[in-house]
Amino acid sequence: MRTVPVVRNILEANQRLAEENRKVFRDAGLFVINLMSGPGAGKTSLLERTIDGLRGQVRIGVIEGDIQSTYDADRISQKGAQVVQLNTGGACHLDGNMIKSALEPLDLERLDLLVVENVGNLVCPAEFNLGEDMKVMILSVAEGDDKPLKYPLMFQTSAVLLINKVDLLPYVDCDVKVMRERALQLNGDLTIFEVSCRTGQGLEAWFQWLREQVAMRKAKGDGAKA
Amino acid sequence: MRTVPVVRNILEANQRLAEENRKVFRDAGLFVINLMSGPGAGKTSLLERTIDGLRGQVRIGVIEGDIQSTYDADRISQKGAQVVQLNTGGACHLDGNMIKSALEPLDLERLDLLVVENVGNLVCPAEFNLGEDMKVMILSVAEGDDKPLKYPLMFQTSAVLLINKVDLLPYVDCDVKVMRERALQLNGDLTIFEVSCRTGQGLEAWFQWLREQVAMRKAKGDGAKA
Repeated sequence: MRTVPVVRNILEANQRLAEENRKVFRDAGLFVINLMSGPGAGKTSLLERTIDGLRGQVRIGVIEGDIQSTYDADRISQKGAQVVQLNTGGACHLDGNMIKSALEPLDLERLDLLVVENVGNLVCPAEFNLGEDMKVMILSVAEGDDKPLKYPLMFQTSAVLLINKVDLLPYVDCDVKVMRERALQLNGDLTIFEVSCRTGQGLEAWFQWLREQVAMRKAKGDGAKA
Repeated sequence: MRTVPVVRNILEANQRLAEENRKVFRDAGLFVINLMSGPGAGKTSLLERTIDGLRGQVRIGVIEGDIQSTYDADRISQKGAQVVQLNTGGACHLDGNMIKSALEPLDLERLDLLVVENVGNLVCPAEFNLGEDMKVMILSVAEGDDKPLKYPLMFQTSAVLLINKVDLLPYVDCDVKVMRERALQLNGDLTIFEVSCRTGQGLEAWFQWLREQVAMRKAKGDGAKA
């Protein structure tokens, strides 16, 4: 009984901070994505591809979340995007307070899209709102088509699922049709893209979806799905 | 300040339960492995291969940890091994108390090796002792050679690293030599096996290592590395 109130306080405090972040993002006219996946599914590779694909069209900023190291932020920085590295020092997910602390170095007025790359973990990040417009998750076909059965919350809380590394399909035991069906059973509203960040396959549809989301946010102020 | 004592109590209570489990395992002459990896790195496939490879030589029991579903336990059960499914109901790792609760249905006297398959997560499971002799981790080459930089604790606490899916090396951007070097920089005592659970490549060396660990435990009682 003793730990339950502590957990509730943490989630309530996080929700309050997430709402503060959301107000900052809306005031700046930003579309904000919380990008989640297990380790090595391709979050940073997707960001590199997306920054290149939307160059001159959508101004992208990135908050990189890792337990330690600046390896991912260095990769993003080389693409010329605004980037902040958050080191959690052991924590397995980002929270609202960490995001709040990461905003100061970013020039939000010069961004259209902010992507928060969460810690690589299919479990804990799904529980913490950061103030984002949408949660977007990546699942690599190398992880197998059984993952929706075993990590349901992330599929239930995400608006978009990117099935990545489809170039590996001839070499792995993964049925994308089964993966899609299992994901849609958990969340019938999921928008699904099949992509390969290695070959570029399927990425134009994802870029177009992002262009539309950013345009909707600019047009309506707060019209995008919260 | 207020949450620190709670966290310390949790870890202390877990350590106490882990020691109780360890005594049960030692009394039964069991060698016990805590098997950890990110989602889809191949824990269950390794277990299927290992049960087949050591059939008639080493009697293997499995505790399957998942957030929900009995999918993995069903796979193991089809191999004819004793198996218990633990559903954490959301929790991102197993702990000593969960393992204690899972032991009752197992006939430990008729086992030589007990493998606890942890929740797929490269972060949290590394912090919780279950009473095992050794932590063993799997990293798939599809996850990339940068993972030791970003998830150091699991490499530091493991005795064995299995680099899995080496059959995919021609198709992914992963340098196994770099992966090995980065892992050994974190933990120079790591025993490393390069394997493919899909093709069977490299698995005989892993089987032989297991045979030796089980024989040492039987010979010395408590002689295996704790």
